[in-house]
Amino acid sequence: MSVLITGGAGFIGVNLAKTLVQRGHSVVLIDNLSLGSKENLQYFDLLPEIEFITADVNKLETYISTLAKFHNRNAITEVWHLAANSDIPAGIEDPSVDLMDTFLTTFNTLKLMHQFNIGRLIFASSSAIYGDMGDTPIREHDGPLIPISNYGAMKLASEAAIFAACEKWLDQCFVFRFPNVVGAPATHGVIFDFINKLRINPARLDVLGNGKQQKSYLHVSDLINAMLFVCESCKAKRQIFNVGQVDDGASVRYIAEEVVRQFSPEATIKFGVEEKGWIGDVPKFRYDVSKLKSLGWRPTFTSEQAISESVRQIITQFQR
Amino acid sequence: MSVLITGGAGFIGVNLAKTLVQRGHSVVLIDNLSLGSKENLQYFDLLPEIEFITADVNKLETYISTLAKFHNRNAITEVWHLAANSDIPAGIEDPSVDLMDTFLTTFNTLKLMHQFNIGRLIFASSSAIYGDMGDTPIREHDGPLIPISNYGAMKLASEAAIFAACEKWLDQCFVFRFPNVVGAPATHGVIFDFINKLRINPARLDVLGNGKQQKSYLHVSDLINAMLFVCESCKAKRQIFNVGQVDDGASVRYIAEEVVRQFSPEATIKFGVEEKGWIGDVPKFRYDVSKLKSLGWRPTFTSEQAISESVRQIITQFQR
Repeated sequence: MSVLITGGAGFIGVNLAKTLVQRGHSVVLIDNLSLGSKENLQYFDLLPEIEFITADVNKLETYISTLAKFHNRNAITEVWHLAANSDIPAGIEDPSVDLMDTFLTTFNTLKLMHQFNIGRLIFASSSAIYGDMGDTPIREHDGPLIPISNYGAMKLASEAAIFAACEKWLDQCFVFRFPNVVGAPATHGVIFDFINKLRINPARLDVLGNGKQQKSYLHVSDLINAMLFVCESCKAKRQIFNVGQVDDGASVRYIAEEVVRQFSPEATIKFGVEEKGWIGDVPKFRYDVSKLKSLGWRPTFTSEQAISESVRQIITQFQR
Repeated sequence: MSVLITGGAGFIGVNLAKTLVQRGHSVVLIDNLSLGSKENLQYFDLLPEIEFITADVNKLETYISTLAKFHNRNAITEVWHLAANSDIPAGIEDPSVDLMDTFLTTFNTLKLMHQFNIGRLIFASSSAIYGDMGDTPIREHDGPLIPISNYGAMKLASEAAIFAACEKWLDQCFVFRFPNVVGAPATHGVIFDFINKLRINPARLDVLGNGKQQKSYLHVSDLINAMLFVCESCKAKRQIFNVGQVDDGASVRYIAEEVVRQFSPEATIKFGVEEKGWIGDVPKFRYDVSKLKSLGWRPTFTSEQAISESVRQIITQFQR
């Protein structure tokens, strides 16, 4: 199988590429390196094993002409479309950011696929398309869909464009709505921030908020396994899956204690008093993942285990 | 109140403009006249009573500078965004059509509203956002939303962008998902086509399909009354409403017989044998409109009455 990954130099892209290479597939990554990086590729020593193209999916002509060279040598059979804005506050400030980077990247990728006659698309959607659904576990068919960020809005727009394409010419599409994902290589996020703070002051970790915020976290390896599991077992023309945990999550207190335990055992943790954490914090949501579970998939790590494993990986990443 | 209607020279736009003028509001219409027309404006003799601007909502600079002149004289307080591609097969052939005319018109209208600080948006969405939901009556919160046309996809994208704006700066938005709407001035549609056929051959009306297809039809006056009813009575920040009939619809046979009765009573009707009608026929759907009914709204016309009234109006339109 020959696979194109858009946004392939991001955290999830390089983890996916590594897994696909291990399974013997031919992989080409495209990334404009605005949010992804060559360091991410180096983390897994991917460059000898894959083809990497630095190009912007939104420059359609270059996108098509560059990929044509690869496609003519080694016909691409499926696309994993991960390219998107990942800076949600930037998109809230200026809607053009998500219009371009989260939606038009999808529109252009569909154009490329149609032109190259590539029949299968796997799309990284998001819990953000649901907006604020309160405390009820969210199922794939729940609505109304009232996204509260331009990022969520343009992920929903992308889903819609993909479904319309799947009615006309696309053979198969899988839409995966991602949860909070942890793992390495990390460039941001709560674990990354805690370790950074302790590198500056190994004696003390200041935590925003009272540490009681609880969220579920999926390890990136479980996310990728879930998607590959669906790709291998599901014959439907189009499917939507929530991908997420089956537990109640891990608290910020747990994350702080785990970082301290593994990285700086002598440090004292100081919690704040507020209920809420950092600005731009993802709203609380709970997925119902029974659709995915009904196919037989289960995560390897619980939320706490995913955190613990990620802390270990990110410490190693820092120590390189 | 000072109201901007985008796509204001279309069938629904001119009906809305006439009603708003009758209620004493100041109205400005913008239309690029690609699908709307000056004939539509003349049908209600609107030009003396409203301000009409020929401009393309997708030429953002012109859109903003032209409207600024009006807005500075008479501050616009709400926008009814109707501008969209209405040629669904054209959008299926080329996704750029609905990207531009159905989605970017919305994106640009939001930009204009934000810049002019206009707080209220009424948006003409569509049953097409639901895709094929089978025979179950569709409620506003039903999903999953799997549009099967680019038109439906870009209406859904528009809704999403509007909701994200409503989280940040827009004061209020009402999204109305339109049904099949009939009335005058007509430029296409089954009634229009039947009358045209009888103008050519007053003795015989050939009908595609066996005439048993049944759909519900809302008269444009009922559609507009429903929306104005919500605007006047609903205080919520954001709401979605299906607008539609509460009956089982009218058959093609009924439409054919009504056109013959009113326009050419001597004509013979010849039905086909196929179950399906014309190509591009809207897929069958049934709305659950209990949300709208719970506010106290009821349509004036049944589907059959809406057809009968529209036949009368379109015959008059032809005889001018």
